[in-house]
Amino acid sequence: MSTAVSPLAPKHIPDLPEIAGVKLATAEAGIRYKNRTDVLMAVFAKGTTVAGVFTRSKCPSAPVEWCRAHLAGGSARALVVNSGNANAFTGKNGREATRLTAALAAKAVGCRAGEVFLASTGVIGEPLDATKFAPVMDGLIARAAPDAWEAAARAIMTTDTFPKLATATARLGPATVTINGIAKGAGMIAPDMATMLAFVFTDAPIAAPAMQGLLAKSVVDTFNAVTVDGDTSTSDTLLAFATGAAAARGAPQILRANDRRLAGFRKALHAVLANLAEQIARDGEGARKLVEIVVEGAVSKRSARRIGLSIANSPLVKTAIAGEDANWGRVVMAVGKAGEPADRDKLSIWFGDIRVAHRGERDPAYDEAEVSRYMRRPEITVRVALGLGNGRDRVLTCDLTKDYVAINGDYRS
Amino acid sequence: MSTAVSPLAPKHIPDLPEIAGVKLATAEAGIRYKNRTDVLMAVFAKGTTVAGVFTRSKCPSAPVEWCRAHLAGGSARALVVNSGNANAFTGKNGREATRLTAALAAKAVGCRAGEVFLASTGVIGEPLDATKFAPVMDGLIARAAPDAWEAAARAIMTTDTFPKLATATARLGPATVTINGIAKGAGMIAPDMATMLAFVFTDAPIAAPAMQGLLAKSVVDTFNAVTVDGDTSTSDTLLAFATGAAAARGAPQILRANDRRLAGFRKALHAVLANLAEQIARDGEGARKLVEIVVEGAVSKRSARRIGLSIANSPLVKTAIAGEDANWGRVVMAVGKAGEPADRDKLSIWFGDIRVAHRGERDPAYDEAEVSRYMRRPEITVRVALGLGNGRDRVLTCDLTKDYVAINGDYRS
Repeated sequence: MSTAVSPLAPKHIPDLPEIAGVKLATAEAGIRYKNRTDVLMAVFAKGTTVAGVFTRSKCPSAPVEWCRAHLAGGSARALVVNSGNANAFTGKNGREATRLTAALAAKAVGCRAGEVFLASTGVIGEPLDATKFAPVMDGLIARAAPDAWEAAARAIMTTDTFPKLATATARLGPATVTINGIAKGAGMIAPDMATMLAFVFTDAPIAAPAMQGLLAKSVVDTFNAVTVDGDTSTSDTLLAFATGAAAARGAPQILRANDRRLAGFRKALHAVLANLAEQIARDGEGARKLVEIVVEGAVSKRSARRIGLSIANSPLVKTAIAGEDANWGRVVMAVGKAGEPADRDKLSIWFGDIRVAHRGERDPAYDEAEVSRYMRRPEITVRVALGLGNGRDRVLTCDLTKDYVAINGDYRS
Repeated sequence: MSTAVSPLAPKHIPDLPEIAGVKLATAEAGIRYKNRTDVLMAVFAKGTTVAGVFTRSKCPSAPVEWCRAHLAGGSARALVVNSGNANAFTGKNGREATRLTAALAAKAVGCRAGEVFLASTGVIGEPLDATKFAPVMDGLIARAAPDAWEAAARAIMTTDTFPKLATATARLGPATVTINGIAKGAGMIAPDMATMLAFVFTDAPIAAPAMQGLLAKSVVDTFNAVTVDGDTSTSDTLLAFATGAAAARGAPQILRANDRRLAGFRKALHAVLANLAEQIARDGEGARKLVEIVVEGAVSKRSARRIGLSIANSPLVKTAIAGEDANWGRVVMAVGKAGEPADRDKLSIWFGDIRVAHRGERDPAYDEAEVSRYMRRPEITVRVALGLGNGRDRVLTCDLTKDYVAINGDYRS
């Protein structure tokens, strides 16, 4: 599926450290792709907790329903992810496929099926032949290793042009704990959720409800503040697994999300999620520019978010940026269509540090040549000040290019 | 701006009859374009009534504010439309430009400025030099003729590839009355309003409040059911002018929109608006396919509309159709993201008459080759049955092609 690597890709793929209690392996199950890995299996030590946030689609995939149903158990021993087929809108067959996959993994790992978490990404509506996992399952368990992070991130890619990894450490009591994350995009990315798939792993001993609270809060300004095309997937999944292995090094057991000892961990988790979310925007299908939309002076943060998304999802704004055209009139249009309080005569707009519009008119000092130079950069910030209140928000997106159309016009064929 | 004529254009440009009390003229004012007409002037007989529906943008253009302010008067003697500059987000300068344009026209026609209606379409945020209308105004009045319909429709075009005209007649009492309409698109077209600009003219003697009621009702399933890119313009304007000249032939004076004698007129007006709205979808920027989305079995018409627009505005659905790919999984995605009641396991989807998905699964009789043949047609119908209630709606859109990106990446440059 993937073509040339996005010009917005990070310069280096980060080298993720091992996390005690997590082992990873990948395989070629031949779900859809040929000559590439398409299954990721993560095996977790006993006592690993799990939390998750999922798509708000009214037509979620079978794996999303599976995960939702088993999240209450709070315990995870394995994660199985396949690329190539989303197992979405596959009816009874789809539910059967999740049951079979979980049963195969549970047997291989030696755990309950409800401790196996699942995610699938790829085409919607085609039956997933889960029997293809059977021949590779024992090999996955046998090969599982603590250092296979990049291979893991590669196995879950679909139209992604680069694997997405991030890591951070934090102090938790006397111990240093690690948070690793992997994710994949790259189209059908919209709040809420804006992931497609992201998996976070830590050795911190954090109870499932506490991790759930941390995740729910942190997605708001990370994955949920990213949009590529405004199209919400049926499969968006963010799962976090905490092995608790750092307890052996003195890290305290955390039961509640508001525990004060979590200050550092909360920040590190947010950094990992923000990093992965930005990589998703950097790998938006056909993207040539990373676009940051900052909205200030709205009546509330919620209103600022809606205006930011209206701008970020506007095909006319996105194509103008693709054309390196500082067409701020389209930003005005997108503010106006958001349906949120806005007063044209108080509105100001900047591209980078250059104010192009001020209080409802073109800025008198507007210099088209200066703005045009700015628009040639690979990373563009559009800032809108509404002058109404203190509501502020930030949304990440990318431009809309002919390549987006090409990628999505030919995806299945 | 325009390139090759859209392959979806009607085979013939209709020949519109004269309407007593309406004269039209066009001119080259050099607002932005060279060597083409960019001003339309319509002059109306005394006693002409006016009604209008406008964009819901919170950042409307100066002409939209001008029209809104003067609609209450209910009387129109002139309409001045320019293409090339939208006079939107132009602040005090923009208000000054509308005042000057109306004053120039009022002086030339011999009426009050408040009887002059205005519309502008084109780039947002650039000052409109209304003094450019002065040298052409007297010539416009002198040349105004009852048969210049096609020239009128051409003068208001921007990225349109063909002029949009429609006509119909109706019985009103003992008389036959005529309704003529012209419109222009072709991007930044989204509910509500989905026009950019449309003007309707009739000789029926209909009071302004009655016409307002008729318009407000008829736009719901015509202009407001069309979307090209989901981007609502700052300038969307639909104005209707009724000269009342048919009263001389015995047509009764109509004071209320619910007058029973309006049955035929209502139908004819709806036909004209529906025809123009469809032409706008047929000329969506870069469009190669006209796409009809039918949603049935929703909990309400309102819910069906929202689901229909979610499908019609989905970049992934639109690019799939551009690629002639019957990717109904993306239709499922768009249903799911609409936020409206939907039950995956009751959902069925058709492309044309071919059922591709049934009750949450791929249709067992699904034949990819048959659907692929259907997708090669220039006009595609996607039908979704939700199985929840009796809500039904229909939305028109077009596909999303590389040409849309090209047109909108290069619009200003």
